[in-house]
Amino acid sequence: MAKKQMKLGAFFMLPGHHAVAWRHPDAKADHVLNFDFIKEQALTAERGKFDMVFLADGVAAGAESKVFGQSSSVPFEPFTLLSAIAAVTKNIGIVGTVSTTYNEPFNVARKFASLDHLSNGRAGWNVVTSGGKEAASNFGLKEEPLHAQRYERAHEFVDVVKQLWDSWEDNAIVFNQETGQYADASKVHTLNYEGKYLSVGGPLNIARPVQGHPVVVQAGSSEAGKELAARTAEVIFTAWQTLEEAQDFYRDVKGRMAKYGRNPDELKIMPGVYPIVGQTLEEAETKRQQLLDLIPESLGVARLSRQLGVDLAGYPVDGPLPELPDVSQINGGKSRFQLLKDLAERENLTIRQLYQNIAGARGHREIIGTPEQIADQLEDWFDHGAADGFNIMPPVFPTGLNDFVDYVIPELQKRGLFREEYTGTTLRENLELQRPENQFSKEAVTH
Amino acid sequence: MAKKQMKLGAFFMLPGHHAVAWRHPDAKADHVLNFDFIKEQALTAERGKFDMVFLADGVAAGAESKVFGQSSSVPFEPFTLLSAIAAVTKNIGIVGTVSTTYNEPFNVARKFASLDHLSNGRAGWNVVTSGGKEAASNFGLKEEPLHAQRYERAHEFVDVVKQLWDSWEDNAIVFNQETGQYADASKVHTLNYEGKYLSVGGPLNIARPVQGHPVVVQAGSSEAGKELAARTAEVIFTAWQTLEEAQDFYRDVKGRMAKYGRNPDELKIMPGVYPIVGQTLEEAETKRQQLLDLIPESLGVARLSRQLGVDLAGYPVDGPLPELPDVSQINGGKSRFQLLKDLAERENLTIRQLYQNIAGARGHREIIGTPEQIADQLEDWFDHGAADGFNIMPPVFPTGLNDFVDYVIPELQKRGLFREEYTGTTLRENLELQRPENQFSKEAVTH
Repeated sequence: MAKKQMKLGAFFMLPGHHAVAWRHPDAKADHVLNFDFIKEQALTAERGKFDMVFLADGVAAGAESKVFGQSSSVPFEPFTLLSAIAAVTKNIGIVGTVSTTYNEPFNVARKFASLDHLSNGRAGWNVVTSGGKEAASNFGLKEEPLHAQRYERAHEFVDVVKQLWDSWEDNAIVFNQETGQYADASKVHTLNYEGKYLSVGGPLNIARPVQGHPVVVQAGSSEAGKELAARTAEVIFTAWQTLEEAQDFYRDVKGRMAKYGRNPDELKIMPGVYPIVGQTLEEAETKRQQLLDLIPESLGVARLSRQLGVDLAGYPVDGPLPELPDVSQINGGKSRFQLLKDLAERENLTIRQLYQNIAGARGHREIIGTPEQIADQLEDWFDHGAADGFNIMPPVFPTGLNDFVDYVIPELQKRGLFREEYTGTTLRENLELQRPENQFSKEAVTH
Repeated sequence: MAKKQMKLGAFFMLPGHHAVAWRHPDAKADHVLNFDFIKEQALTAERGKFDMVFLADGVAAGAESKVFGQSSSVPFEPFTLLSAIAAVTKNIGIVGTVSTTYNEPFNVARKFASLDHLSNGRAGWNVVTSGGKEAASNFGLKEEPLHAQRYERAHEFVDVVKQLWDSWEDNAIVFNQETGQYADASKVHTLNYEGKYLSVGGPLNIARPVQGHPVVVQAGSSEAGKELAARTAEVIFTAWQTLEEAQDFYRDVKGRMAKYGRNPDELKIMPGVYPIVGQTLEEAETKRQQLLDLIPESLGVARLSRQLGVDLAGYPVDGPLPELPDVSQINGGKSRFQLLKDLAERENLTIRQLYQNIAGARGHREIIGTPEQIADQLEDWFDHGAADGFNIMPPVFPTGLNDFVDYVIPELQKRGLFREEYTGTTLRENLELQRPENQFSKEAVTH
C-alpha cells in the first residue's frame, strides 16, 4: 500500500510572514499590490504541487495601532485576488478567508459558488468571526460583538451557506433547447431559514458548486472554535509550538466529531509552519538573525501587546512578562493568548525574546535548517498524530517560497511523503475529502 | 481638430440578451458558467477596443416566477468573474453591478479598490438599489425597502465609498526600508461617518485605487435615479426607444449637474443598444424572426407582466394591454414601466407584439441591418445630443459579439467615430474622465 501523504497549503501573505518582511532586501515596494508578482508566486506554488493557496483576511486597517506606520497592511481583498489567481492557474486550490460577522450569507454562498465554478472545483472558504473594535466600527457597530455571539452566528451562517449551495440539485439544469425547459424547478429549493441571527429565503442564484460544497476551512482553536470545526470544518489551520500540544489538539478535535456523525478522516488538521531553509544549518540561522534584526523594538512590543491583549509598553523589554489575566477574561484571540502565555512560561522568556520568537511565525511553529532537517521536522509531526499536513508560511516572498518548492518539496517527495503530480482535478479530490451529498435531494429520496 | 469619438461598452449577459438566447443554436449548455468561454468573449471585446465589459446583477434566483424553469438565471457573481477577466486582459475596462441595499460600504469600497489595483486602473462600479421581495427575503427582510429609502441609502452609500477610497492619500505609502517607515500615518484618514442609514469608521485597509476612484456608473432613470446620477455618476447606462426620449433624458440629466458643481462632460450617457447585424437587411430580419420564434407565449407574457409589475395572464395575448395604474403607484422599475406603457400606446401594440418587441432588448433600442445601417443609427443619436456612446447588448454570444466587432466596429472606425487603439491605460483615461482629487488631501491644503 502506498504511504500516506501529507497535505500542504501555501499561505500567501505579501510581502511575507515575518513581522517586517517588507524591510527585507528581497521585498520590493510593489510586491503587495502587484498582481503580476503574485501570479508568479501562485505559479511557483502550483509547480510545487501545493494543495492550495491560502489567504488570511481582516476588515480593519489597524490605524489605531501605535505602530501603524511601521508594518504593511494594505493587501488585496481575498475574493478579487483569488478569482484572478483562479484564472491563471490550473490545479492548485484557492482558499480565502471571509468573516461570518460582517457579511451576508447569501453573498458569501454565492461568491464561493461562483469561485468554485470559475476554477472548476478548486475553491475553499476559511471561516472566521472577526474580532476587534476597529473592525466593528467599519460596519456600523460601536463595540465588537461578544466572542460567544460571534460563534453562535457563525454556526448558523455555515449552515445557511451549505443549504444555499444545496439549493440547486446537481442535475437541476436541464438545458433542453428543443422543449424550452432550462431548469427543473422541482430540483431548485427555497430554504426559508429562520434562525436567531439570520433569516434567508433562497434559492441561491447560481448552480450548485462543482465540488458540491467548496472546502470549509477554519482557524480558531478556542473551545467555541474547536466545536464549530468538529461540526462543520474539513480543514483546520492551527498554531502549535510543541508536538505534545499539537497531538492533544489533534486528538481533542477529532474526538469531538463522532457526536456529529462525522469520521475523523473528514477533517484535515494542518498546523502553520514558518520555515527558514538553508543549504546548511548555519546559513539558515544567519537568515533567521537577519530577519530578527529588522524588527524595531517599539514594533515588537506593540505587536506582542496586541496579540496578548495586554499593553506591555511600560515594562522593561529585557525583563519577564508581567502577571497576565486568566484566559476567560479575554474576548477574542483566546487560543493565541494561551499559546503565548504558555510559551513564555515554559521557556522562561523575556519580553524581547518572546516578541522575537513570534515575530515571524506569529505564534506558529518556526522550523529551521537544511531541506533534510525541515523535512525531518514535518515528518515527525505527520507520523506522530499531530498533523495531516501543514500550512507553509514563507518569511519573505519570493525567496522563502522558492526555497521551499525547490529544496524541501523534492525531499518530501523522495521520502514518499508528498505527491509528485496532482491526482485529482478538484481541491476536494486532492485533499481526499468526499463530495457532500445534497441535503435536499437526500430528503427527496427518503420521503 | 479630431472628430469626437463615441464610447462603447460590451454588456455581457450569457448566453445572450435575448429573452431565451439559451435556446438559440449558437448557445451551448456551458456558455453560462464556463470561464474559458467568457474569457474568449472578453478577448474579442478587447480586440474590438471596447471601453469596457459591463455586467448586470441581481440578488435573487427568480424562483417565484411562474416561468422560472424556462429562462436562464444562474450566471457567475460579477466580482469573481470581473477579477478573473482582469487577470487575462490588458486594456479593457471591467464594470460590475453591486447593490447598495444588500451590502456593506466597507466591503464594496474595498473590493472595487482591490479590483482597480488588480487591473491597473480598469475598474468601474454600477450602482443599483435592488428592488424585489425575493431579493429582500435573501437578506433577512420580509418586504422590499421602499424605493425612496433605497435611494436615500444609495446617496449615503456612494458618499461613504468615495470617502473610503480617499482614506489613503496617493502618497501615503512611503516604503522606506532604511528607516522602517512603511506608511505616513498622517496621510491615512479615519472617516467616522454617521448618516441616517450608515455609520463607518475607516480608514479602508487598501491603498487608494489606481484611478483615485473606480468609475461610478448608474442605470436607474427614475426621478430619484436621475438625481443620484447627476450628483455622483460618471457613466449612465440607460434605455430609450426614440431619439426624442433619449435627447430629453440627456438634456435633463446633464442640466441637473451644475447645481452639484459638475460639468456635463464629467458624465457619459450610454444608452443600451441591441444590434442584429446582417450582410443584408434581409439577413438581419431573418435573424430577428429566428430569435422571436424561440419565445414561448407563456414566457413572453410572464416577462412582460414582471417588467410592468402588472399580471397580464388573464388577458387575450393578441388583444391590447388592460388599463394600467399610474407610475406613481409603482415601487421600483418606474422608468421601465413608463417606457413600456408609452411604447404600447404610441405604436398601438397587442400584448404579443409588445412582448416580442422587448423580448430581446428588454426595453432597450433594437437596431437591425447591415453594418453601415447599424453605424448610421448609432451615429444619428451620437451626433444629435442623445448619447455619448452606447452599451452594446448582443442577442446571443459569441456570434452577436463577433458580428459587432468584425463588421460594425470597423465601419465606425472608418467614419472616425471610434478609436483604432486604446489611448489611455486606465478606464478613466479611455472614457476621458478626470482622475478625482482626494477630498482629504484637499482639506489639508486648505487649512
